[in-house]
Amino acid sequence: MSEAGLSKTTGWAALASSHPLLAFLDAALRGSGQVVFMNNPLTGALNFLAMFWGAWVGGTTLAVAFGSVVGTVISTAVAQASGAERGALRKGLHGFNGMLVGAGIATFLGGTALAWAVLVFASGIAAVVTLAVEKVLATWDTPGLTFPFIFTTWVVLLAAYRLPAWPIDGLPAAALAAQTAAGGVGAAGTAAAVADAFGLVEAARAVLTSVSQVFFVDDPLAGAIFLLALAVESRRCAALAAAGAALAVGCAWALGADRAAISHGLWGYSAVLTAPALGCVFVARTSSALGHCAAGTLLTVILQGAFFTLAQTAGIPPLTIPFVLSTWLFLLARRGREAAPGT
Amino acid sequence: MSEAGLSKTTGWAALASSHPLLAFLDAALRGSGQVVFMNNPLTGALNFLAMFWGAWVGGTTLAVAFGSVVGTVISTAVAQASGAERGALRKGLHGFNGMLVGAGIATFLGGTALAWAVLVFASGIAAVVTLAVEKVLATWDTPGLTFPFIFTTWVVLLAAYRLPAWPIDGLPAAALAAQTAAGGVGAAGTAAAVADAFGLVEAARAVLTSVSQVFFVDDPLAGAIFLLALAVESRRCAALAAAGAALAVGCAWALGADRAAISHGLWGYSAVLTAPALGCVFVARTSSALGHCAAGTLLTVILQGAFFTLAQTAGIPPLTIPFVLSTWLFLLARRGREAAPGT
Amino acid sequence: MSEAGLSKTTGWAALASSHPLLAFLDAALRGSGQVVFMNNPLTGALNFLAMFWGAWVGGTTLAVAFGSVVGTVISTAVAQASGAERGALRKGLHGFNGMLVGAGIATFLGGTALAWAVLVFASGIAAVVTLAVEKVLATWDTPGLTFPFIFTTWVVLLAAYRLPAWPIDGLPAAALAAQTAAGGVGAAGTAAAVADAFGLVEAARAVLTSVSQVFFVDDPLAGAIFLLALAVESRRCAALAAAGAALAVGCAWALGADRAAISHGLWGYSAVLTAPALGCVFVARTSSALGHCAAGTLLTVILQGAFFTLAQTAGIPPLTIPFVLSTWLFLLARRGREAAPGT
Repeated sequence: MSEAGLSKTTGWAALASSHPLLAFLDAALRGSGQVVFMNNPLTGALNFLAMFWGAWVGGTTLAVAFGSVVGTVISTAVAQASGAERGALRKGLHGFNGMLVGAGIATFLGGTALAWAVLVFASGIAAVVTLAVEKVLATWDTPGLTFPFIFTTWVVLLAAYRLPAWPIDGLPAAALAAQTAAGGVGAAGTAAAVADAFGLVEAARAVLTSVSQVFFVDDPLAGAIFLLALAVESRRCAALAAAGAALAVGCAWALGADRAAISHGLWGYSAVLTAPALGCVFVARTSSALGHCAAGTLLTVILQGAFFTLAQTAGIPPLTIPFVLSTWLFLLARRGREAAPGT
Repeated sequence: MSEAGLSKTTGWAALASSHPLLAFLDAALRGSGQVVFMNNPLTGALNFLAMFWGAWVGGTTLAVAFGSVVGTVISTAVAQASGAERGALRKGLHGFNGMLVGAGIATFLGGTALAWAVLVFASGIAAVVTLAVEKVLATWDTPGLTFPFIFTTWVVLLAAYRLPAWPIDGLPAAALAAQTAAGGVGAAGTAAAVADAFGLVEAARAVLTSVSQVFFVDDPLAGAIFLLALAVESRRCAALAAAGAALAVGCAWALGADRAAISHGLWGYSAVLTAPALGCVFVARTSSALGHCAAGTLLTVILQGAFFTLAQTAGIPPLTIPFVLSTWLFLLARRGREAAPGT
Repeated sequence: MSEAGLSKTTGWAALASSHPLLAFLDAALRGSGQVVFMNNPLTGALNFLAMFWGAWVGGTTLAVAFGSVVGTVISTAVAQASGAERGALRKGLHGFNGMLVGAGIATFLGGTALAWAVLVFASGIAAVVTLAVEKVLATWDTPGLTFPFIFTTWVVLLAAYRLPAWPIDGLPAAALAAQTAAGGVGAAGTAAAVADAFGLVEAARAVLTSVSQVFFVDDPLAGAIFLLALAVESRRCAALAAAGAALAVGCAWALGADRAAISHGLWGYSAVLTAPALGCVFVARTSSALGHCAAGTLLTVILQGAFFTLAQTAGIPPLTIPFVLSTWLFLLARRGREAAPGT
């Protein structure tokens, strides 16, 4: 979104505008950057680099890295073919949902020929969903964020349960919300969870891994590269992303959430996006902005827990819906200040 | 929607306008036709004929056929009494959701006195839901489609689980999404499913049955009558409905979906509506239209699988929600072309 | 909403406007009154009185009563700090969702220090959700009703399943919709349910308890005080609230719903709000209004059953969502009269 990216890279910007193919490459790279709100091709390039680093070092497969590239390209191309508004296309606003769909589907479907066909189709659908969602939300001057990615990926995963030709691995087994008999929900385990402290190194790892989990990568070093990519465009946003993850990891730990899940970044990845969204991307730097940013990040943690429960009932992961709902609520509330309730 | 219907039936149109009762009959018949988007009383009459054919030959009960008639009449009457816009009433746009509610509730609640009371009340509610949904969607110049039918029927079926006086049969037993241990979701069975080929006759039966399942009828000959009724008003739409069902049946089969479900038309009935909706009803005949139509139909098949999983978790059938979501997304995306994302 | 409240209490109104603190107290009291749509500080004061009566006599804890006070104050304060529109603030339209969040969270989380921290945070979030929801619904000139309370409370309860430090009691154990083998859903029990009659005294208790359950109180005398509080501002609304509860209790009993649930007011509390909303608060006193009011109340009963099924699948209570959906549909349908469907 920020225009700073253009100035910082005028040399490349000039080159990019010299040839349609380069312009498309530029849009695709900015699409990768827009996953973390950065309208900057260098941020996007570093994000892709981190995807491949995660594939080689971080235990994710190469399919995930290539899937993120293919998804970005397909969704950007489909949006262009569908006649999407030029400015938005150039800023990469039609690419980031495709990148996440590509990485997500490769994560759960693997790299079979059919999986790639589904990935390509779903990335195109993500472009259609983006146009539809933006059309609806424009009514309240609110962005679609990663909702098109979430909707598209959920649909593909839910359908897989009925389409045996789509063998999917790594989905959370569907289960009903479980209450522990004594002392209400999960009271057992509280003691244990609170007892053993969370080492600073372990906490730092959890924070960086939370950043990488935004891209389905489970590796702290990849997370560091993603943060660096963010800092290339905005140091403030990078700091907020890290701070958001730290706040989320801290809260989840203090409230006795599952330690393994925290360490794998599953309680922090949504907050990685909420904090910069409410702290520097969509709002002016006012005194109240930072307060809203903190409150929105806390709400994101609670929503993360709520959707672990709700999504598992359906046998799917929450993805980044906690970030989307929290950010929508706080942005709409700002717009709502002028509107009189009930009128 | 199409005005051609009026011209083709001017004789009847003149007669219909001669007396309020005939005008109401005309609106009710067009309501039946609007289930498949046809503003044509003859299409509606043939649809009702197919309902009774299905009752006598196709194994559905007479209650389902009569229920569809009562539902159409009640919802049209309630909409008229509620002061709905005249033009929409005359076109039957307040009748088709009632027809489906009537057929659906008679299918699951049977023909007891209480079932009829519920059917009448629910058909009236469908008219209220239609007015509400159309009011909201008018903001984006998008039609409500069969959503009022889906919402109303889901509510009645979900309530039945807590109201023993409403004995309901034939609901899918509520179940959590099931993963097969080996090789992820439903990998087992793939081989088998792909192994035995789907005969052409069996495929044709599945396609025609898909058409009849739009109306809760499970009979290929009834499906043929429904297609004929469609062709009376628009041969192109009839061809697209059949093509949509064929594409859906083919995909479901290729992806290893349950054979019995495919044969009973449960994987094709939503596509029967999506294809004409995106191919000739709501969009101009552009070169890109047919591409969107095919993509939307494919998305409908995936959504069908997704909602088999999701709806069964709640113990209800998906009804035509896959058609509604896919059509909304593609229609809103067209409208979204002019709108700039994020603004 | 009604302006009568202002005239009836001009003395207090003058005093209230004399000092910011008194003005805030006035807004908080009106917030309590707005739970039942009454813009009247005396109604609010009596509602709080009934909360404490319920705590001492009716078996609810003092935490629930104090929670309702804290929730009202926090949400009103946060809305004021967020720059909400003055008129709406003065009418208490930013307090009633907080009051319900406070009572609800104290009911399920109890009175531990952490529970109070969650209660305070959630009450503030309720103010944010209110601003957001009102902004969206203003597009169709429709009020947010108690949706912000429902959304916020559901999120906190769902999150509790993953946060062992939040021991929650009294939640319905998550369960799938259950079909009885013979004769479809819950056919067994019908005989029994219809057999033993519902005594008039028992029915009256159920009606009054339904009124108290709007505020998480399970006590007929508290319900009587809540009705009195309503009557202070509008006798017609009080009569409609009681009539709505009576209609709901009668229908639930006739349809064989669980007797214990009916006696505890769980089938009537939503109707307590729908009837006055559609009978005197949001609509003019037309001849058709009463018919819509009755139909909307009946729909509320069916929605109550539907959400008992749906919410229990996720392990949460339905709260007042049946009231919200039924009222939204009928209000939007009125607005929709002028709009032409599909255009």
